[in-house]
Amino acid sequence: MRAAIFRKGEIVADTLAEPRPGAGQVLVKTLACGICGSDLHARRHAGRMIEMARHLGRKPMDINRDVVFGHEFCCEVLDYGPASERRLKPGTRVCSLPALLTPEGPQGIGYSNENVGGYAERMLLSEALLLEVPNGLAAEHAALTEPLAVGLHAVAKANIRGDEVPLVIGCGPVGLAVIAALKLKGLHPIVAADYSPARRQLAQKLGADIVVDPAQVQPYVTWAEHATMSPEQKAARPALQAWLPALKPALIFECVGIPGLLQQAFEGAPRDARIVVVGVCMETDRSEPMLGIMKELNVQYVLGYTPDEFATSLRLIAEGAVDAASLVTATVGIDGVAGAFADLANPERHTKIIVEPWR
Amino acid sequence: MRAAIFRKGEIVADTLAEPRPGAGQVLVKTLACGICGSDLHARRHAGRMIEMARHLGRKPMDINRDVVFGHEFCCEVLDYGPASERRLKPGTRVCSLPALLTPEGPQGIGYSNENVGGYAERMLLSEALLLEVPNGLAAEHAALTEPLAVGLHAVAKANIRGDEVPLVIGCGPVGLAVIAALKLKGLHPIVAADYSPARRQLAQKLGADIVVDPAQVQPYVTWAEHATMSPEQKAARPALQAWLPALKPALIFECVGIPGLLQQAFEGAPRDARIVVVGVCMETDRSEPMLGIMKELNVQYVLGYTPDEFATSLRLIAEGAVDAASLVTATVGIDGVAGAFADLANPERHTKIIVEPWR
Repeated sequence: MRAAIFRKGEIVADTLAEPRPGAGQVLVKTLACGICGSDLHARRHAGRMIEMARHLGRKPMDINRDVVFGHEFCCEVLDYGPASERRLKPGTRVCSLPALLTPEGPQGIGYSNENVGGYAERMLLSEALLLEVPNGLAAEHAALTEPLAVGLHAVAKANIRGDEVPLVIGCGPVGLAVIAALKLKGLHPIVAADYSPARRQLAQKLGADIVVDPAQVQPYVTWAEHATMSPEQKAARPALQAWLPALKPALIFECVGIPGLLQQAFEGAPRDARIVVVGVCMETDRSEPMLGIMKELNVQYVLGYTPDEFATSLRLIAEGAVDAASLVTATVGIDGVAGAFADLANPERHTKIIVEPWR
Repeated sequence: MRAAIFRKGEIVADTLAEPRPGAGQVLVKTLACGICGSDLHARRHAGRMIEMARHLGRKPMDINRDVVFGHEFCCEVLDYGPASERRLKPGTRVCSLPALLTPEGPQGIGYSNENVGGYAERMLLSEALLLEVPNGLAAEHAALTEPLAVGLHAVAKANIRGDEVPLVIGCGPVGLAVIAALKLKGLHPIVAADYSPARRQLAQKLGADIVVDPAQVQPYVTWAEHATMSPEQKAARPALQAWLPALKPALIFECVGIPGLLQQAFEGAPRDARIVVVGVCMETDRSEPMLGIMKELNVQYVLGYTPDEFATSLRLIAEGAVDAASLVTATVGIDGVAGAFADLANPERHTKIIVEPWR
């Protein structure tokens, strides 16, 4: 079968052996697979990713061997391995979180030498993890289940009480997923910042009430303008807090993932702010703990999603509760993946590029 | 009156003008005032402290003018300023959180050019903030109200559910206050780490169940040995989490406050750990956000306490619920403050030195 392979630091189109489903596994045809920012990160920072996996006691990928990326997929059931229930008929469209249950325990799909990801014509999934795509939902939109689940998870980990004013820093796919998840929670106003006009427009489409261009104005300043306490809230504060700015609780989502952004949040955030770090920064970062301390900040790092959040994500997209379609800016075949990696550097042109390996 | 003054980077004994109580203020005699690690920090990193205060929009102290440190005090009421209720008679022993209510709003006591702290014979407090010391409690123990309140606050901000196993890194006064507060919460086992045998012994006295010498063994390894899930908890985990170490929730208190400690926690902490940063690190710090992300860590920076926590702290000491006496390792007069600052560098000799300015 054909695949876009991560080989010696580059993405190349080539053929690979057909995968064969083991016990409880399913052979599927990849209908659509999103290119994730993490894949771009992984190509550039593969060494760091391996170091981290090793640190966490997981088996890291070997970058001297082929890897097929792709963990945001929608597939079609082709065939089952032994010991399967064959619950879903061949031809059924399915999503699955990117994990494969093996006799050695769960393994990741997409950053593994053993388990090819969605940039290949066919791949293996686990029957126990399959979710049927509700009838009629386009494969390229079902493939957005995974990135939206990241947003749902980030918002779930934020333990929202309902009185917060959120600020989303960065409106790439992760930031947009967070905005969509915040909108579902009914939190308003949602303030969002991105340098790109196209992405600010998308942010509004997905639920941001106020968008900020950080080149024009400090996002934290705009946030504060929209987070002023009501006169009643202001009057209810203890006397010793009267000197503090009268602001509603801040909930900041860092969705960029480059060094320095956390420190910017430390500088810009008001007292008692909660910062949720969703952007994956692969490099060492610096911050001023004194700012964190003097403001009593809380930093919640998040990753991934739970199986329930993943299933909810698919349902929300199918119900039209999230405008998934607006995220997809292009589709490519296997030969187009390398070019798509380059194109994604331009936020004006692209948000989510979907790989259709069957093309 | 006499005072130990922070002047040109050093602590010197000299005389100062008598303070005069303004409206709602009280002139008090300082009976006992603890030397806090923050005072040692402030002497060394005054520039940073000023930078931070400025950043937060507070009026910073001017280090070209005299400052009298001391914010952990127990005092005796001498006289009242105008517009006072004179609720407590002269001679009454009182504690107060280190803030002075002025017509310009609340101001800090102890890091201010205007409001002298507890290393002076007399100082001003606000009548509205006075707490009467329960009869019979020694002034040097009542002076521990403030540092113990720091521990109570840190533990309150940790949002304890009851199933966590705490690890306290650093058993100086802050770590010891955290241990005392954890013991009051009934959390067991409490694991605590410090290089000093004297401080490990104190940690046990205040409630630590297991103490670790980091020179001998990694505190996080010892923690894990005492945080293993029960077979029932292990069996109740979702299948996809079966590959994770079967550990109870980790609650780590960083009570040292030097660069690198947070990164050590990032490296040593298990998945989903909550890290409460109580130690005040004044320098820029580095950490690997990837570790935070992959482990979904939560970092709560904390500072100070609420007025309620402060009042609770005094009550707990008075009731004997916390063994405050064991923390006090020396008392000095005004002339002994400079030497005490130097002596506090040796954790074997000292934990809390109390200044008695009347000596």
